[in-house]
Amino acid sequence: MSQISTKPASGMRDFLPREAALRKRVFALIEEVYQSYGFQPLETPTLENLSTLMGKYGEEGDQLIFKVMKRGKKFERALRNDAPTEVDLADMGLRYDLTVPLARIVAQYQNELPRYFKRFQIAPVWRADRPQRGRFREFYQCDVDVIGSTSMTVEAEVASAICEVLERLEFKNFRVHLNHRLLLNAMMEAAGVAPELHTEALVAIDKLDKVGLDGVKKELAERGIAADVIDRLLPLLGLADEVEGNEALLAALAERVGELESGKKALSELGDLLRFAAASPAGPYLKIDPYLARGLSYYTGPIFEIRSDDFSGSLGGGGRYDGLVGMFTRQSLPACGFSLGLERVLMLLAERDALAEPAPDVDVLVTLWRDDFTPRSMALAAELRRAGLRVDLYPDADKYSRQFKYANERGVPFVAILAEKELEAGVVAIKDMKRGDQAEVPRAELASWIKARQS
Amino acid sequence: MSQISTKPASGMRDFLPREAALRKRVFALIEEVYQSYGFQPLETPTLENLSTLMGKYGEEGDQLIFKVMKRGKKFERALRNDAPTEVDLADMGLRYDLTVPLARIVAQYQNELPRYFKRFQIAPVWRADRPQRGRFREFYQCDVDVIGSTSMTVEAEVASAICEVLERLEFKNFRVHLNHRLLLNAMMEAAGVAPELHTEALVAIDKLDKVGLDGVKKELAERGIAADVIDRLLPLLGLADEVEGNEALLAALAERVGELESGKKALSELGDLLRFAAASPAGPYLKIDPYLARGLSYYTGPIFEIRSDDFSGSLGGGGRYDGLVGMFTRQSLPACGFSLGLERVLMLLAERDALAEPAPDVDVLVTLWRDDFTPRSMALAAELRRAGLRVDLYPDADKYSRQFKYANERGVPFVAILAEKELEAGVVAIKDMKRGDQAEVPRAELASWIKARQS
Repeated sequence: MSQISTKPASGMRDFLPREAALRKRVFALIEEVYQSYGFQPLETPTLENLSTLMGKYGEEGDQLIFKVMKRGKKFERALRNDAPTEVDLADMGLRYDLTVPLARIVAQYQNELPRYFKRFQIAPVWRADRPQRGRFREFYQCDVDVIGSTSMTVEAEVASAICEVLERLEFKNFRVHLNHRLLLNAMMEAAGVAPELHTEALVAIDKLDKVGLDGVKKELAERGIAADVIDRLLPLLGLADEVEGNEALLAALAERVGELESGKKALSELGDLLRFAAASPAGPYLKIDPYLARGLSYYTGPIFEIRSDDFSGSLGGGGRYDGLVGMFTRQSLPACGFSLGLERVLMLLAERDALAEPAPDVDVLVTLWRDDFTPRSMALAAELRRAGLRVDLYPDADKYSRQFKYANERGVPFVAILAEKELEAGVVAIKDMKRGDQAEVPRAELASWIKARQS
Repeated sequence: MSQISTKPASGMRDFLPREAALRKRVFALIEEVYQSYGFQPLETPTLENLSTLMGKYGEEGDQLIFKVMKRGKKFERALRNDAPTEVDLADMGLRYDLTVPLARIVAQYQNELPRYFKRFQIAPVWRADRPQRGRFREFYQCDVDVIGSTSMTVEAEVASAICEVLERLEFKNFRVHLNHRLLLNAMMEAAGVAPELHTEALVAIDKLDKVGLDGVKKELAERGIAADVIDRLLPLLGLADEVEGNEALLAALAERVGELESGKKALSELGDLLRFAAASPAGPYLKIDPYLARGLSYYTGPIFEIRSDDFSGSLGGGGRYDGLVGMFTRQSLPACGFSLGLERVLMLLAERDALAEPAPDVDVLVTLWRDDFTPRSMALAAELRRAGLRVDLYPDADKYSRQFKYANERGVPFVAILAEKELEAGVVAIKDMKRGDQAEVPRAELASWIKARQS
C-alpha cells in the first residue's frame, strides 16, 4: 500500500502505555489534592469560536492559534473573497489556554455558579509554535482558579494547594517566589520610572533569570530608563539579597515604599498572605522576591512562581487578575489562579521514574494450556479479578516458553498455570517472575497468596 | 466592551462541575475495569496529519473531518493555487475516531509493543456533523482493542470487560447481540444472493432496527435482490425467533449453512466464543442474532452490539477487523475491538443521576469569623485535609448567614465554626447542614466525628 508516514504530526506526541500511565497517575494525584481544597472540575470544549480566542493573547498569540477551516458552502463563500485571510476562511480555533475559556464560562453561567467559583482543569491546549526540544504544539495545562473574592485567603489557599501537589509528587528544594504588581509599581515610582515606561521596565526586570543583573541593567537602559533611575531602582529590587527573611524584607520595603499608596496596599496584602499561609503547607516555601515580574500583562495583585535549585526555569506560576473576566461580561469579577507547568513536571518525573523499576500494570498472567482448557483459564481469570487483581489472559494455547516471554515483555510479576495436573489436584501453579520460583497453591487461596507476595 | 457570544461553539458543550464530575467518575470506573483485564492506556494526539485521516472513513467521512489550516507562508503558498480546495489549505485534521490512530501507532511502534497489544483509550473525537439533539461535534469515545491474536479468547475477554463495565454502572436488561460476518456471508450464499450484492444486502439487513422486517424486505428488493432469494434469506435471518437459546440456534444454523466453508468457520468460532465466555461476566448476556450486520465494512469475523429493552439503539459495538492495521504497515495484524457508546451511557446515567441527590464534592466548609482569625481557620482546614477530608474555606470574613448560604449552594454537608468562644474552649462548632443541628466537638476529634456522621 501507499507509504503514509506513521509518525505523529509535527509537534505532536504519542504516549505509549508506560508514559500514558505515568501521566494518568500524576493527573489523578493532582486532582485529588485540588479536590481536597474544594476545587471543582470544569470541562470546556477543544474548539472555541474564533471570536472568543482572537485578541486575547496579543498579536503573536493570535498567530499561534490553530484555526479550523470553515466547511462546505461557508468555505466556498469565504474563498470567493478578494484576498481571503486565515481568519476569513476559519470559524473556530483550538483552545490556546484554559483561562480565556474559564472567563467565557463565568460570563455565560454566572447564575448557575456558586458565589465563589473554585475550579480546576487539567486539559490540553494547542499552540502553533515552531516545535523544538521540550516544546510541543499540544501540551497539557493544569490550572486552579478562584473567581469572586478579593481576600488574600484565596492566594494562600491556591499557594497551599500547589505546594501540597509538589510535596505529594516528592519535589524538594522548591520555593514559591512571591511578589505584587503594586509593589513593583511602587518601587518604580519611588525610583522615578515614568508611568509610561513601567511596562518597558517590567519586561526588562522579568529577564533577570535569563540575562542576570548586568543584563537587566543593560536592558533597562535600552528601554529608555535613565541611568540614575536605574541606580535607584536596582537596590530596591535587590533588597532580598541584603535582608534575611520575609518579615524583615517587608519591613525594609515598607521603609522605602510604604508611604506610597500602591506600596502600602501591596505590603499589606503580602503581609496578610504570609500570615494566612503560615500554618498551611505553603508556609515554609513562600519567599518574597521583589524581582519577580511575570510576563502576562493582566495581573493586578500578588503574583507567584515556583522555582527550584534542581533545575532552571519555573514549575508554574500565577497571580491575581481582577480584570480578565470582565472581558466577557460587563460585571468585573476578582480572580486569582495558578497554572502548574505540567509538561515540565511530567518530564522531571519521567526522568526520575526512568531510574526506578516501573510498577507493573498487571498483577498476574493466566496462561492457556490447551484450547479445551480456555473456559477454565477464563474462569480462573474472572475469579482473580473478582478478588481485586488485575489479570491478563494469554489468548493462544502456545508453548509455555512464549507465554513466559510475553509476561516478561509486559512486566507481569506472577504467572498462573492451570493444566490437567493442577486441575485434578485443585491447585494452581504460580510462578513468581522476579524470584523465579514456582509454587502450587490451592485455588481458593491463590488471590490472597499473590497479594501477600506483592506487599 | 464588545458583545462576544459566551455560548460554546456550535456542536460543542461546556460541562459545569456536577456534570464534569459525573464524567470523571464514569471514566475512572471504566478505566479500572479495563485495567483489571490487562488493557493498557494509550494517548494519541488530537491532531493527525491529514494524510493519516483522509480516505479511511469513506467519502462522507472525509468531509466530516475538521481540518486545521496551514499557517504563515505555507498557507499563502496554498492560497495562490488556482482553485485551492479544503485539503490544499489544511495540513492536519482533528482525530475522527480512535481506531485509525491505533493502527498508525501499531505500525509505528511495532517493536516496542508486546506481542499482544491490549489497549484502552477514552478520549474525544471530532466530526463536523450537523449538530442536533444528542449529536455533538466533540464527543468521547471509549475503545478497547486487542492486536495480535486470532483466538476467540480475545472476543470473549473483550465482551466480558464490556459487560463488567455495564454491570458496575448498574445497567440492567442489556444483551450482547452476537453475529459473525462469515455467517452472514454463508446465509446469503445459501439463499442465493450473488456475491456482488452481498454489501447491498448487508446494508438492508442492518436497518432492521429502524425499519422493521417489512422495511428490510422492501429495502432488499430495492437493492436488486430477487423475491425468491429474499424469501429464502429472511427465514435464515429470522431463525432466532423460532429457536430458543444460543446452542439450539447454532445447531439450527449448522443444519442450514454448516456445510459451507464460511458457515462452518463462523459457527465454530461462535461456538468457541460462547464456550470461552460462559464462566465470565459476559456469559449471561450473549445472544446470537443472525440479523446483526453492523455498518462498518472492515469487520471480518465476530461482531457484537449492546442493546437493551430500556431504550432504543445500541450502547456500543465492535468486532474483529483483521485487515485494518495493514493499512499502515505491510504486515497485516489480527485485531478485535469494542467501542462503548460513552456519550449515550453518560446521558442515561445523568438522567438516572438527576433523580438522585448529588453526592457532595466537599466534606466540610470552614468558615471565617474575623479577618484576624484567618490563619486559625486556615490551620483548621489544613488539619482536616491531613485527616483525609475535602475542605473548602470561605474566603471572606462575612456574615455567617452568607457563609451558610454558600455551603447550601455548593451542597457542603458540614460547616465548621471557629470563633473566639470555640478557640478558648478548644472545640469547633460543627453544623450538620442536612439535619440542621449543631454540636461542639473537641478539635482533635473533629475529623473522625465528621467521618462517623458521613457513613
